[in-house]
Amino acid sequence: MERIKLFFDCDTGIDDALALGYLLAGKEKVDLVGIGSVCGNIDAASGARNSLDLLNLAGFTFTPVAEGERDYSHAAYHCVSQHIHGQNGIGDIRLTPAPRAIESQTAAEMLISLARQYPGELHVLATGPLTNIAKALQLAPELPELIARLTIMGGAALVPGNRTPVAEANIAGDPQAAAAVFRAFNNIVMVPLDVTLSHKLTEEHRLQLLNSGKPFAHALGAMLEIYIDFYEKTYGTRACAIHDPAAAYFAIEGLNHCLAPKVKVVVDDTQGPGRGQTICDMRGMYKGYPVQQDANCQVVLKTDIDLASVLMDKLMTL
Amino acid sequence: MERIKLFFDCDTGIDDALALGYLLAGKEKVDLVGIGSVCGNIDAASGARNSLDLLNLAGFTFTPVAEGERDYSHAAYHCVSQHIHGQNGIGDIRLTPAPRAIESQTAAEMLISLARQYPGELHVLATGPLTNIAKALQLAPELPELIARLTIMGGAALVPGNRTPVAEANIAGDPQAAAAVFRAFNNIVMVPLDVTLSHKLTEEHRLQLLNSGKPFAHALGAMLEIYIDFYEKTYGTRACAIHDPAAAYFAIEGLNHCLAPKVKVVVDDTQGPGRGQTICDMRGMYKGYPVQQDANCQVVLKTDIDLASVLMDKLMTL
Repeated sequence: MERIKLFFDCDTGIDDALALGYLLAGKEKVDLVGIGSVCGNIDAASGARNSLDLLNLAGFTFTPVAEGERDYSHAAYHCVSQHIHGQNGIGDIRLTPAPRAIESQTAAEMLISLARQYPGELHVLATGPLTNIAKALQLAPELPELIARLTIMGGAALVPGNRTPVAEANIAGDPQAAAAVFRAFNNIVMVPLDVTLSHKLTEEHRLQLLNSGKPFAHALGAMLEIYIDFYEKTYGTRACAIHDPAAAYFAIEGLNHCLAPKVKVVVDDTQGPGRGQTICDMRGMYKGYPVQQDANCQVVLKTDIDLASVLMDKLMTL
Repeated sequence: MERIKLFFDCDTGIDDALALGYLLAGKEKVDLVGIGSVCGNIDAASGARNSLDLLNLAGFTFTPVAEGERDYSHAAYHCVSQHIHGQNGIGDIRLTPAPRAIESQTAAEMLISLARQYPGELHVLATGPLTNIAKALQLAPELPELIARLTIMGGAALVPGNRTPVAEANIAGDPQAAAAVFRAFNNIVMVPLDVTLSHKLTEEHRLQLLNSGKPFAHALGAMLEIYIDFYEKTYGTRACAIHDPAAAYFAIEGLNHCLAPKVKVVVDDTQGPGRGQTICDMRGMYKGYPVQQDANCQVVLKTDIDLASVLMDKLMTL
């Protein structure tokens, strides 16, 4: 089987680190051809460093990392996630600095050059705000035709948001960028809170990682402490959501064993109370989601897969 | 047990007619002190006539009916529901004109005078756009303190809308009015599509009504034909939603046997893609909906009650 060529755009971030671990552990299926950073969980420069240092920790010293947009498309970046991801984005653990340098091109430029290098083959996984993808679209409007599929962790379809009552944090970070992306692409897979908040890593999982004796897994176990501290307020138990690794899973494994109707999705980029909402046309739900002519996005609503087990199996190998 | 004093604000409307039947059949519990009409399913003048003629058909010749707002608070009325409710709002069946006249006061004026007549006692059930309620609020800003409870059929919390992907038709009809009502009242019960679309009257129920030998029930059975024609497109089977009668049920019986968290609800009255959405803060769903300080509305998400059976039992007596 040929490996999937993947560009990973992320804001690393504790759950981005989990997703990265999942991708690295699946190297027989994934050819990680590049990583971009974007402002979101952490500033773009720190996110790029985090990715590079995590790659180094796992022994992947040849994967190029590009720094992406430092500000959102229509607003200056301001970090609001310290209580979730720590001051440095990865739960304030210290990693050995990687010897490799950050690339000189931007994340958007790297994405475009990879898309042109592998036309129709490149998969894109975006687990942060969609600022880099929107920027790349501006620079290369033909991008949607060059990309095999764009998988996004973000949005909420039939469950509440996590930044506002209706907006999920990645989309809420840069609603204008997200709106532009959903207008331009028709081959999107959206992995929203509907599925990511219904799958959890528990404190037990965290301790398994921490005590695994494996360097990458140990680092994940250490950084998950603050993340679980935060999610305990959501769930009332010591566990955290599986956001970004869920998106990584579906990007690689596809959508078997999922309820994932293809529907029209638009993003609310007004200044109103719905700002940042992914408005998904789910009106067909009462009769099995008939085909929508203008559908642009497969929305993963639920899955039979035990994402926590699948993820743990992979991470414990690192 | 004392009967509930109820003002019923509606846009009659096939399911408004069902709700009216439910209220009339429950006269041992409900003192229907007045009915207002509002533009929505049909124009306000026709809606008032429909209510009056239906009352007459059921032998209720003393219930006053007031005509309400002919236009929405910020837009001219234009009927878009002929394919759902027929040209005359009640499935194009003909009723004997009631001898009683429409009141000279408006629906908003009637609501205010009833609220002052029964301070703290009056229950309001609104099954159309909230134009009259917003108008009454303008005329009497103390209205929320005078009203025991405002029960609304409208909105959508964790399911799609029916007018747009996120907006339900009553709220979408006059988002500005709805926004004003949700800002001013903190004793709202909202009966949204979450519950009303998950309860159905079937073609079998319709035939029971049609063949009941009872005049009001027969009329309902006749008018339900076009309504079921419409809802067949939603469900894929010959059945229709139980919108307005569900709200009537909860207005009278209260919220036992319901999942109905009290949360903050705001209405999107922007011109954006979320216009008309009831934005319900359901973020507490993962740990049993903890108390929200600024909550203004109990949102009925689901119920164990078999609403179709309860409704049929009542309607078959008329």
